[in-house]
Amino acid sequence: MIQEFKLLKQLCEVHAPSGREVAMKDFLLRYIAKESKKWKVKPEVYHGEEFQDCIVLKFGKPRTAIFAHMDSIGFTVRYFNQLLPIGSPDADAGTVLVGEDSLGAIECVLEFDKDNHAFYSFGRQIDRGTELTYKVNFRDSKMYIQSAYLDDRLGIYNALKVAETLKDGVIVFTCWEEHGGGSVPYLAKFIYEQWQVRQALISDITWVSDGVEPGKGVAISMRDRNIPRRSFVDRIIAIARKRQVDFQLEVEGMGSSDGRELQVSPYPFDWCFVGAPESGPHTPDERVHKHDIRTMIELYQWLMKDL
Amino acid sequence: MIQEFKLLKQLCEVHAPSGREVAMKDFLLRYIAKESKKWKVKPEVYHGEEFQDCIVLKFGKPRTAIFAHMDSIGFTVRYFNQLLPIGSPDADAGTVLVGEDSLGAIECVLEFDKDNHAFYSFGRQIDRGTELTYKVNFRDSKMYIQSAYLDDRLGIYNALKVAETLKDGVIVFTCWEEHGGGSVPYLAKFIYEQWQVRQALISDITWVSDGVEPGKGVAISMRDRNIPRRSFVDRIIAIARKRQVDFQLEVEGMGSSDGRELQVSPYPFDWCFVGAPESGPHTPDERVHKHDIRTMIELYQWLMKDL
Amino acid sequence: MIQEFKLLKQLCEVHAPSGREVAMKDFLLRYIAKESKKWKVKPEVYHGEEFQDCIVLKFGKPRTAIFAHMDSIGFTVRYFNQLLPIGSPDADAGTVLVGEDSLGAIECVLEFDKDNHAFYSFGRQIDRGTELTYKVNFRDSKMYIQSAYLDDRLGIYNALKVAETLKDGVIVFTCWEEHGGGSVPYLAKFIYEQWQVRQALISDITWVSDGVEPGKGVAISMRDRNIPRRSFVDRIIAIARKRQVDFQLEVEGMGSSDGRELQVSPYPFDWCFVGAPESGPHTPDERVHKHDIRTMIELYQWLMKDL
Repeated sequence: MIQEFKLLKQLCEVHAPSGREVAMKDFLLRYIAKESKKWKVKPEVYHGEEFQDCIVLKFGKPRTAIFAHMDSIGFTVRYFNQLLPIGSPDADAGTVLVGEDSLGAIECVLEFDKDNHAFYSFGRQIDRGTELTYKVNFRDSKMYIQSAYLDDRLGIYNALKVAETLKDGVIVFTCWEEHGGGSVPYLAKFIYEQWQVRQALISDITWVSDGVEPGKGVAISMRDRNIPRRSFVDRIIAIARKRQVDFQLEVEGMGSSDGRELQVSPYPFDWCFVGAPESGPHTPDERVHKHDIRTMIELYQWLMKDL
Repeated sequence: MIQEFKLLKQLCEVHAPSGREVAMKDFLLRYIAKESKKWKVKPEVYHGEEFQDCIVLKFGKPRTAIFAHMDSIGFTVRYFNQLLPIGSPDADAGTVLVGEDSLGAIECVLEFDKDNHAFYSFGRQIDRGTELTYKVNFRDSKMYIQSAYLDDRLGIYNALKVAETLKDGVIVFTCWEEHGGGSVPYLAKFIYEQWQVRQALISDITWVSDGVEPGKGVAISMRDRNIPRRSFVDRIIAIARKRQVDFQLEVEGMGSSDGRELQVSPYPFDWCFVGAPESGPHTPDERVHKHDIRTMIELYQWLMKDL
Repeated sequence: MIQEFKLLKQLCEVHAPSGREVAMKDFLLRYIAKESKKWKVKPEVYHGEEFQDCIVLKFGKPRTAIFAHMDSIGFTVRYFNQLLPIGSPDADAGTVLVGEDSLGAIECVLEFDKDNHAFYSFGRQIDRGTELTYKVNFRDSKMYIQSAYLDDRLGIYNALKVAETLKDGVIVFTCWEEHGGGSVPYLAKFIYEQWQVRQALISDITWVSDGVEPGKGVAISMRDRNIPRRSFVDRIIAIARKRQVDFQLEVEGMGSSDGRELQVSPYPFDWCFVGAPESGPHTPDERVHKHDIRTMIELYQWLMKDL
């Protein structure tokens, strides 16, 4: 059991808040260089300054792309002991935050003043602009995985699992998803212009809600704040039914993903968010049911074949 | 009189909420195939998967494009009997909503709970993700047209009337305008790259306000939430004056249109919103004065010649 | 002393609210035509309808672009004596506003009603859509420059000073920055496609705050509402240190710039906001310390060499 999610634990422990995804890029490039030899198809790997800290993998003759974001929420050190949010963190006072500045490693404590402004408590001043993330406590129980940053290390994990047997497709690892985006537009341009790919699956984590329960299977999101083209969503639902994968339909009015940027890009992308639901989003204690992880991987394997 | 606005009535009755514009695409493709034989110039028609559910018509040597959006506001069925808005509907409890799901046709009633959340009242559960729109009651009186969805079926109607005598120009039918956009960027790219067109008229419906009255002529909008380039707006006003078309100048701080997406696209589009004003926007009872419809068509005919 | 900032005074006095930047374009084209003969390298000048009211200067073999916006905040005349904001003006009742309409020059007074709606007081009605800006009172004291519109005429001034000795680089004068943007996407496309430039410096004015003081040197902004790629910001900080230019690090959670549009464009731009801090932003009395202006120019000169 430990073995099954070892890679997921490693991914969760990488420090990669929005804007500073470089450690995740390095981890993934090393992992792909080593593991891709065992994959059914060895992908072409695209990265470098023209991709900032993003990575694109191309397998065979692609028709569909998987998007998984590398960045996480966190905090930036402002002046004095003030903290600014990166994305939308949701943590209680007392949460342990980690990072590094010119004086070395940091392990400090999140606090809030009476106006609910975040600040840190630490034995010394931290350099301006230092990025802090949750200290990761990865918990692997019989039915659940619980950890900070399952959003979206589980989306990356899913993509890497699908990569093992993928024949035709693109996998895109993106940046800045938690904080306003910015990499998806040029990545969309690249894969559309190179291979005319304009079908996308957003490999990301959604929420347990009054209509989506843990353990009932991967969620296919019919809409969130954005509305994808219905005919594309219907094709995905039809494949899930035909292949008898356990899934749930999600319908939300809030929340967003890399799909938003595909929608408004100058390329005619169809997209659909397909991912496991979690409780405790953006807290240090995000929790996902293992059945939902396994059905997520299974559904992606079929979708990359059938779409 | 019935004859003059028969097409408008048909357009209003098409079910095409944002994300599910396919019925409008099919209606328009059939209409264009049949009617364009009688037009002064038979346009080239562009559609298909590279255009999602959008349509582009190209006449002669185009310099200017007309943008009219196909989608309407509405509701998506969430869990239980909950409804989420598509765009910004404005309807009272008791409004009749229509749609279709796996069990067949739906005609249900909009209600609100004490927290003002929308829900439906119907004899059975409706499938998750089902899109509902207002039941259309089209009223044609001596001076006014009143119906749901004049926004923007009247913009489409205007474009189709202008098409009858158009020599040079592009007509673009877009999607998702009411809900965050997403088709205009790639459509702008297409018409700019194909024909170097970068002048655009937004054929859409605006509001009766303290400065814009029904029956006083088509509105030329100098700004809304967005501010178009003043020199382009001035050229449009000059043409309206020279051609002696009855018009009103609009100046607003709110509201948006397909023009916003042209403004922020990576192509140097000039745009101006030119459309009839309505009362009751986004309600089932939008009302437009016929003089404003007729001057809208007349001004577009001149603008497509003179710009 | 008067001589040093004479050009800055002239720039502040140009009427160029967002959407009507044409007077600034004309001023700059005249200035560049005349002065560029004395510059170390005479740039190629790009402008015209494909650039709307923007201007691009290309020097030598560029690697980095300077972005400075031409537009300012202001007001649009709505109906009766109502005013709508252009961008986010911050002015008290009694502020003098200037502009011009079909009846001639205007010098009117800003007022607010009890609901805080802006209106004008003037001896006659002003044409709908007329743009009004602050009457400029340029003050040059021993240590400070104070004037309306240092944001961003000082950013333009900086770019023109750097132009005098620039060997390799691009300077871009943009529109609409104060009101939703719209020119940066196509300008980014142009310089990326023409010269593969994807490094950008935002030559704009920031705020004096609890962490950034007047007179302590130019601010290098590590983030605002948007978060640039950390590795690019680190290179800029390293150059400032190596070249021993007096600078301050800024870390903010709000505010935005042309950098935002570069970030979300379909081109892989790295960007960083580098500019002098001011007190009284968007008021008629913006004030900047001269040491911060001089270190801004000095740092840009090094950055354009070293990046």
